[in-house]
Amino acid sequence: MRAINFSAGPAGLPLPALEKARDELLDFEGTGMSIMEQSHRGKEYERVHFEAINLLKELLAIPDTHQVLFLQGGAHLQFAMVPMNYLPAGRSADYVLTGVWAERAFEEAKTVGKVRAAGSSQNANQRYTRVPTQAEVQVDPAATYLHTTSNNTIYGTQFHSFLDTGSVPHVCDMSSDILSRPVDVSRFSLIYAGAQKNIGPSGLLAVIIRKDFVKQGRTDIPKFLRYSTHADNDSLYNTPPTFAIYLMRNVLQWLKAEGGMSAMQRRNAQKAELLYGCIDKMKDFYRAPVENGSRSLMNVVFRLPSEELEKQFVAEALQANMVGLKGHRSVGGIRVSTYNAVSVDDIRALVSFMETFAKGKG
Amino acid sequence: MRAINFSAGPAGLPLPALEKARDELLDFEGTGMSIMEQSHRGKEYERVHFEAINLLKELLAIPDTHQVLFLQGGAHLQFAMVPMNYLPAGRSADYVLTGVWAERAFEEAKTVGKVRAAGSSQNANQRYTRVPTQAEVQVDPAATYLHTTSNNTIYGTQFHSFLDTGSVPHVCDMSSDILSRPVDVSRFSLIYAGAQKNIGPSGLLAVIIRKDFVKQGRTDIPKFLRYSTHADNDSLYNTPPTFAIYLMRNVLQWLKAEGGMSAMQRRNAQKAELLYGCIDKMKDFYRAPVENGSRSLMNVVFRLPSEELEKQFVAEALQANMVGLKGHRSVGGIRVSTYNAVSVDDIRALVSFMETFAKGKG
Repeated sequence: MRAINFSAGPAGLPLPALEKARDELLDFEGTGMSIMEQSHRGKEYERVHFEAINLLKELLAIPDTHQVLFLQGGAHLQFAMVPMNYLPAGRSADYVLTGVWAERAFEEAKTVGKVRAAGSSQNANQRYTRVPTQAEVQVDPAATYLHTTSNNTIYGTQFHSFLDTGSVPHVCDMSSDILSRPVDVSRFSLIYAGAQKNIGPSGLLAVIIRKDFVKQGRTDIPKFLRYSTHADNDSLYNTPPTFAIYLMRNVLQWLKAEGGMSAMQRRNAQKAELLYGCIDKMKDFYRAPVENGSRSLMNVVFRLPSEELEKQFVAEALQANMVGLKGHRSVGGIRVSTYNAVSVDDIRALVSFMETFAKGKG
Repeated sequence: MRAINFSAGPAGLPLPALEKARDELLDFEGTGMSIMEQSHRGKEYERVHFEAINLLKELLAIPDTHQVLFLQGGAHLQFAMVPMNYLPAGRSADYVLTGVWAERAFEEAKTVGKVRAAGSSQNANQRYTRVPTQAEVQVDPAATYLHTTSNNTIYGTQFHSFLDTGSVPHVCDMSSDILSRPVDVSRFSLIYAGAQKNIGPSGLLAVIIRKDFVKQGRTDIPKFLRYSTHADNDSLYNTPPTFAIYLMRNVLQWLKAEGGMSAMQRRNAQKAELLYGCIDKMKDFYRAPVENGSRSLMNVVFRLPSEELEKQFVAEALQANMVGLKGHRSVGGIRVSTYNAVSVDDIRALVSFMETFAKGKG
C-alpha cells in the first residue's frame, strides 16, 4: 500500500512519474540501457534534458529574457554562489529574514561580503509567524541584489504577493513552492529551487535567471561557480545529474497533463482551505501559530495542547498510513507538507483523522 | 536486449544493482514509498547512507585516519573546492599534467591562487601518450598539496604506481578508476571520484579525506564549500542526493558479492589483456597510441587506418549491440571504457568483432 506522504522534503512524487521511471529503468525507449547509463552527450539524454527545460519554460511561462539552468548542490550551494557572483568588494547586498533558510542564506553571504538585513519578521521569541509587509522592508537602492525566500518550510509562512524591489535585482529562493502557483518570472533576476519538494528527487536544483543578469556575474571566481559557465553550455558544461533531470521531466509531464499552474493553484488552495478550515474550526485543540495573511499553502504547521499529544498524533497517523507529520526538530509541533503530489483526497483523509483524534483526546 | 555499454561515463551499471532499484522503486522495504521519497533525516534513508559509507570503507580498506564524504557537483566542483580549501594567499600548489581533466583542475586552481606544474607528460603534439615517471616530477616541498589524476579517460593513460609526494599532501582525482583495484589509501590526503563511471549514477561524488587534513582547510570561505562542514555532519549537512547514494550502495553490495577489489583487479587485468592483446596482434590495422607502461585498464583507446574506417567501426559495432565506442570529440579514434560493470564476456564479444572487422577491411 502506498503511504500518504506529508514529508517536507525529499517529498512524495506523483505516482505516474515514478511508475514511468520504474517501467523503463532497465531499458529507456528501446536503447537497452537505463537513462542513467546513457552518455550525457548522446541524443537520447539530450532530448530528455531539453524537454525538461522546455516544459519548465512552458509551465511557468518563462519569458525569453530568462534562461533555465540545472545545477547541483541544492539551495545551499546557491547560498554561496549568489554572493560569490553578485557581491563584489565594496558593495552590499540585502536580505529579507523570514525563517531558518533565509537566515542561512544571509549567514553564508557574510562569508563572501557585506550584507544587510533589509527587513525581518522575527518576533520577540526569535520565531517567525508571518512574512514582512512591503512597508517593513527598506530596500537599499545601492544593493547589488535583494534576497527573499518565497516560502518558509519550517515556520510555515509564505509570501502571497512578492515584494517590490524597485531597480534592485530580486533573487528568490523558491525551493519549497515553485510550480505550486503561477509566478510572474519577469519580476525576478534569479529564482532558484531545489528539486526535492515540488519538482523531483534531491540532488538537482533549477535556476531561472535573467540573461543580462548572467552577464553581470563576477569572472574572477572559479569557473564552475559562475552562472555564466552553465548558461553558456545549456547546463552541459559537466556531467549533469541525468537521472534526477529525467525524473523531473516525468514530473513536469505530469504537471502539464494535470492542467499546469492554474490547476495546481486551484488544487493547492482547496487543500489549504480544507486543512486550515479544520484547524480553525477546532481551535481549542489545534492551534496555528502563523498569522492569517502569511499562512503557507505548502507547509501547514500547527500545535496540539501538549507535546505528549503531538507525539501520539504522529504515532497514530503513522498507524493510519500517514507519514512525515513531525514538525522540524528546531520548532517541534506538527507540519503537514502539501506539495503538488499530495492530493485533495490525501488532505481529506488527514482532516478526517484530525477530527477523530481531537474528539478522542479533546 | 541489454546493450553492451562501453561508454566513458555516465557508464553502464551492474545489472543486479539496477534490477534491485527497479523492483523497489515504488516501495522501499515495505515503507510504501520510494527511497527517493524518504526524508534524509529518517531511519530508512540513514541506514542506506551509512551502509554505503561502510561498504566503501570495507572495499577500499580505508583506515580510521580517513573519512568518507558524499558530495555533489562532480569532479568539477572539486577542481574548485580543493584550492579554495587548501591554497591560501602566499602559498603555492603543485599539479601534475597528464590529460584534459588534469589541465582543467590546474586551470580552475589558477582562479583561486598560485599553482605550478610539477610535471607534465604532454608531448610535442600537445597530446599525452603516457604518464610521467617519478624522476620527471619535481615536487615543491613548500607546496600545500600535489594534485594528480590517476586515470585519464580521454587519452587512455593510467598511473600503475602512484607518485611519491614526500611530505606534501597528495590529492588525487580517481573518478575513472576508483574501485577498479586495491589502493593504499593511507598515501593520500584527499581522494575524490565522481560516481558516474565505476560507482553509480551521475550527480554524486565520493571523497576520501584524512581527518587531520580536513582540519587544515580554510575557514574564511563559504561554509558549504568547506570539507569540514560535510565531515562534521556525516555528509548530512544538507539534503544529499539520496537516490544516487542508494544506487551506489547497490553497486557496492554487488562489488562485495563479486569478491571485492582483488577480484576486480584480476578481472580488469584479464579484460585489458584480451583487448590490448588483440590490438597488438593486429597492429597493422589497430594502433594504440599509448606507451606500454602507461596503458589504462579503464579506457582503452586506439586508432584505425582512417577516420572513415573508424566511423564504420562505430556504426557496425552499434549494429552488433555495442555502444559508446566513439573516442572523445577532442581526440577522435575509438575508446573502449572497461569499467567494473563491463564483463570479460563483453570484451570477448568486442575482440571477436574487432577481428572480423579487421579481416573484412584490412
